[in-house]
Amino acid sequence: MSVPSGYELAVTTDTMVEGIHFFAGTDPALLGHKLLAVNLSDLAAMGAEPVSVSLALTLPAIDNDWLKAFSQGFLSLAKQYSVDLIGGDTTSGPLTLTVQAFGMVPEGKALLRSGAKAGDCIFVTGDLGGAGLGLKINQGFCCSAPEKPLKQFDQPVPRVAEGLAIRDYATACIDLSDGLASDLRHVIEKSSVGAILDWSQLPLSRQVKEYIRLTGDWAMPLSAGEDYELCFTVSPENVGLIDIECTQVGVIEARLGIRLSRLGVTEEFEVKGFEHFS
Amino acid sequence: MSVPSGYELAVTTDTMVEGIHFFAGTDPALLGHKLLAVNLSDLAAMGAEPVSVSLALTLPAIDNDWLKAFSQGFLSLAKQYSVDLIGGDTTSGPLTLTVQAFGMVPEGKALLRSGAKAGDCIFVTGDLGGAGLGLKINQGFCCSAPEKPLKQFDQPVPRVAEGLAIRDYATACIDLSDGLASDLRHVIEKSSVGAILDWSQLPLSRQVKEYIRLTGDWAMPLSAGEDYELCFTVSPENVGLIDIECTQVGVIEARLGIRLSRLGVTEEFEVKGFEHFS
Repeated sequence: MSVPSGYELAVTTDTMVEGIHFFAGTDPALLGHKLLAVNLSDLAAMGAEPVSVSLALTLPAIDNDWLKAFSQGFLSLAKQYSVDLIGGDTTSGPLTLTVQAFGMVPEGKALLRSGAKAGDCIFVTGDLGGAGLGLKINQGFCCSAPEKPLKQFDQPVPRVAEGLAIRDYATACIDLSDGLASDLRHVIEKSSVGAILDWSQLPLSRQVKEYIRLTGDWAMPLSAGEDYELCFTVSPENVGLIDIECTQVGVIEARLGIRLSRLGVTEEFEVKGFEHFS
Repeated sequence: MSVPSGYELAVTTDTMVEGIHFFAGTDPALLGHKLLAVNLSDLAAMGAEPVSVSLALTLPAIDNDWLKAFSQGFLSLAKQYSVDLIGGDTTSGPLTLTVQAFGMVPEGKALLRSGAKAGDCIFVTGDLGGAGLGLKINQGFCCSAPEKPLKQFDQPVPRVAEGLAIRDYATACIDLSDGLASDLRHVIEKSSVGAILDWSQLPLSRQVKEYIRLTGDWAMPLSAGEDYELCFTVSPENVGLIDIECTQVGVIEARLGIRLSRLGVTEEFEVKGFEHFS
């Protein structure tokens, strides 16, 4: 692999395990799409341009129909982002899928989790909780218009163009795989700062609003994972530079921890995102 | 990740699955060593200098003793080769371990499988069948001096220095993960040539010779996997340049396929190496 002079390589890896990250029997085309999308989302969060991927497939058996559909889902998204599949490994065992994704970023320009400063504004792309609602619909929740949340769960859109656009002015960035509260915590810990979120500013689809109205589960959009939106911070003087669709949801503060303002009350927010091994 | 000007990045990935690539209950320190060693072996086969690795761990549960021993085995080998662990992913599920390894190689100098030419001499480092015998000892075969083959099976030595040394004169190279017959087949297929092997030239330890004497299984050193030696080809005029310990085992020919000379008879050799999904 060649890296052009003046560029650095951004590298990420994500594993998906049957029964943990996806249901047994998941449509293999959707699985192929999602596996690649979550890795491209990691590159987007670094402000890197995706270039290539490798794929380590552990399969219980050779099932040609499954492989054909999986490949179609994987490769059609790869084509859309001009990403080459450059290699990998195939082994037998319980269904486990690991992608490594490679992207290019100009030297010193990669977005990190560590650059947020007190006073920076916190933004997110898209809306929150859609994938979480999609999961709940799959588990039996009855939604009046399930198409959008199901699509957000099954076919997340990696925010590659957005990551490239904000690279020059964002101070920190992460993609939302485990939920805003959990992922923002990585940013504030790496940046040695804290944050205050304003619940009323959260971008929510009408389906997520309906879900909250019916269940009272207002924390879901903060704690549900797999939105694969970008969460990033921008200093107040650079907010005018923002040239992508996004929503401010809070502010970075010097005081450590995450606080949430909701219905006129500001409290430490302790709800956790998705935890492996919990 | 930065790549110095004039260099390319060599990338490889290998997965190990419990019950397929290693026995349930394998000493985690040995497992950590072997997982890294097989990936460094892939870099060695490209003539690349190992730089860093990422690790995607799928674990059935958090077992601190297991993780401590695994990390010790993995990191002590990493330290020996000055390799940094730069990231990865941790997920829950059936025990599956995927490493991505990154190495540097001067532009255009990477050893490939595709460069072998008719007339080139075929060499291997070390000796053959040792790891295969180690596996058989684990499965109950009684060996008079089991320490060496068990060590070859448990703790393969990645031939990194050898890969760097032969980079300037080898025409093709591969590491022996699936057995000489199987891996050499990758070389001849990519190079559009064939090969003839001389059984009497195969470097065999006294334990492997004893095994063959007792069992008659003379093909084992050609078909058993996991030796992680290098197999490489060198044109006859460059054989004098070879500055590592190795043994010539055959010659590349224009005629496709692999032939084996043994006891005065030359025949097409069809024994296969380790096959997943067989």
